[in-house]
Amino acid sequence: MNIDTIANNIQRNLEKLSIFNATPGEGCTRLPFTKEARQAADYLKICMANAGLKVHEDQAGNVIGVLEGEDPEAPALVVGSHFDTVINGGIFDGLAGVVAGIEIARLLKESGKPLKRNFVVIAFNDEEGMRFGTGYFGSKAMLGQITIEDLHRYKDKDGISVYEAMQEYGLVPEQVLDAKQDLSKIKAFIELHIEQGPVLYQNKVDIGLVECIVGIQRYLITVHGRADHAGTTPMDMRIDAVEAATKVISKIPDWAREKGDGTVATTGFIKVLPGGVNIVAEQVQFTVDIRSRNNDNINDIVAKIKEELDKACKANGASWEMDNKLTIDPVNLNENMLTLLEQKCQDYGYSYQRIISGAGHDALAIGQVLDTVMVFVPSKDGRSHCPAEWTEYKDIAKAVTIIHDLILDLQ
Amino acid sequence: MNIDTIANNIQRNLEKLSIFNATPGEGCTRLPFTKEARQAADYLKICMANAGLKVHEDQAGNVIGVLEGEDPEAPALVVGSHFDTVINGGIFDGLAGVVAGIEIARLLKESGKPLKRNFVVIAFNDEEGMRFGTGYFGSKAMLGQITIEDLHRYKDKDGISVYEAMQEYGLVPEQVLDAKQDLSKIKAFIELHIEQGPVLYQNKVDIGLVECIVGIQRYLITVHGRADHAGTTPMDMRIDAVEAATKVISKIPDWAREKGDGTVATTGFIKVLPGGVNIVAEQVQFTVDIRSRNNDNINDIVAKIKEELDKACKANGASWEMDNKLTIDPVNLNENMLTLLEQKCQDYGYSYQRIISGAGHDALAIGQVLDTVMVFVPSKDGRSHCPAEWTEYKDIAKAVTIIHDLILDLQ
Repeated sequence: MNIDTIANNIQRNLEKLSIFNATPGEGCTRLPFTKEARQAADYLKICMANAGLKVHEDQAGNVIGVLEGEDPEAPALVVGSHFDTVINGGIFDGLAGVVAGIEIARLLKESGKPLKRNFVVIAFNDEEGMRFGTGYFGSKAMLGQITIEDLHRYKDKDGISVYEAMQEYGLVPEQVLDAKQDLSKIKAFIELHIEQGPVLYQNKVDIGLVECIVGIQRYLITVHGRADHAGTTPMDMRIDAVEAATKVISKIPDWAREKGDGTVATTGFIKVLPGGVNIVAEQVQFTVDIRSRNNDNINDIVAKIKEELDKACKANGASWEMDNKLTIDPVNLNENMLTLLEQKCQDYGYSYQRIISGAGHDALAIGQVLDTVMVFVPSKDGRSHCPAEWTEYKDIAKAVTIIHDLILDLQ
Repeated sequence: MNIDTIANNIQRNLEKLSIFNATPGEGCTRLPFTKEARQAADYLKICMANAGLKVHEDQAGNVIGVLEGEDPEAPALVVGSHFDTVINGGIFDGLAGVVAGIEIARLLKESGKPLKRNFVVIAFNDEEGMRFGTGYFGSKAMLGQITIEDLHRYKDKDGISVYEAMQEYGLVPEQVLDAKQDLSKIKAFIELHIEQGPVLYQNKVDIGLVECIVGIQRYLITVHGRADHAGTTPMDMRIDAVEAATKVISKIPDWAREKGDGTVATTGFIKVLPGGVNIVAEQVQFTVDIRSRNNDNINDIVAKIKEELDKACKANGASWEMDNKLTIDPVNLNENMLTLLEQKCQDYGYSYQRIISGAGHDALAIGQVLDTVMVFVPSKDGRSHCPAEWTEYKDIAKAVTIIHDLILDLQ
């Protein structure tokens, strides 16, 4: 296998796909069920067909290519990622893993070696959840986790439901249930993805072998104080929501550091009401997003937050409430495939490291029911979900070679 | 003097004046140079004339009534407050002090005792600064502290300058300089005002004798971090502006408590950018408003904020800047008048206490150049600048009697 050829093929396809973009000049925007999504899906079908795959689009809008093996009953090996983007995102997030799968198919076909199992490439629809405030639509549909009710429930900013958007896109919404695959017919799922964080790039490491996708808990916390004049209300007569809230927020990052295990905790949103420079705050709302490979770490931090809220509010008479917005359990990826991939890296002389994924992926939904592994490639400066998102094509090519070899091992 | 009669007169005038309101049913809104301000000014002129005062409107829109004494050369005694309101404010803030002045004039006239000095009642224009983002317009004009440039510089939300608003109101803007009074002709200034805080009400005290109006320093602080993915960026690779900022904000109230002296410090505004639940904050802006009767307390807290910003930013690589938005020195009020007023309270059997004013007032501008004193009356639940603002008319009447007696003493 020639790394330069692989890198060139990947570059050509990603550059071509980057044209299907609603915001040219301002990063890549390819929301699900849009004209750009249709154009990208159609182009992917051509790429898949050119690589020797039998192509179809399922009832959820996933584009699926199959390289048939000699035993159609043997559980298949699936490589995939998604083809939608965030608003003003980059050209690598998602599609890097799809075009890598197509390139692996080309290499498998080209080698002429007979495959026992089907090799399947899937370009998943709507992983980001950017348009409807959801996520993992295509992969969940494949797992049978999408209902007709879901299609009516979630709407975009213009009030268009998933149901309506699917019709507009040329799908029959009621058939989404038929996108469910017989999971006993899938042996393993492998996803290549850009890291979207700084670890590999800063460590100058070629390959990240993802052993775990973190669990996530997300909360919206509201602290209720009392609005008072900032000049005329003595300190001991105030119920200052900012004081109580910041006494908690300021401690959260240290609690994450104490946990280790790659645990992270973030307050990215704070809103103060009424928000006047000379008014003691009546209310503070803030978010906390906590992620760890170990649920105990997350639960411990949540408990500490509650304890500190009690303490800070008791001190000045404020009250609080905490609304759980998201809970996802961590997923441990397949140790057997990780060990095999490590061996491949050593064979090729690629630098590699075990890593955990702090972001969700299609592999997060799929990994809960199927043997799954992820391979990360470095993101320049750790940037993603922005126009500056960048990964070297050669790094994607290296990952392609080890996944190609893994596919052969798993026959 | 009959307290009930005084209270009834004050009630009648305040209720009548409350009609001149741009937001009926939603508190009182009387912005400067508006139709409502003109109606209130015209009504005040009638009240003043009825009380026996000679009335005129000065070149800044202040309404002035003079009860002439026997010696026109003897420096006058001035009682006053403002007749504008904030948006959706109450009916007492400002006008309570104006109608009290008119009532004192009536009592002086009624008593038939000859006065040596002129007794002057002033209804100041635009103390709140709500429309143009300024404050103390009328009182500063009287002190000669308003320039023609100021009139062009400050504009309301519709882009109308003070200059244009004055023309619309029927004033000649260039003549604002003529509103300056000969300050050697004023012996003392006395302002009755609602407390706008909870101290007198909670302590069940009739009268607050204001010995000091606090100094104020106000800052907008910006902490610069770096936006990163909240899941994929390890804790030790983040520059989290929220962490650095909240480590400072959370300590500020305790620093104010340590100072005592009625020192207060408030963060009423926090803005986080970009503000996403899953994005490490790139920037936090927050305000600090610090007030104390002692400038050293304020300066010490400012120094501690800078020190803590250095420490918090050094820990994670963030940077900060601090923009001074307001600096006002504290004003000590006239001890001789305070002592006389204490004696009056004792004579009448009113409960009273020394108090400091945490809010600015016309007396803050005037107190820097003239012998000045303020008398506070209780605000129910400490509320003001809102429709719920309330003060018992009888409490205002009690304050009227002691100021009336002070005026006689100072002849």
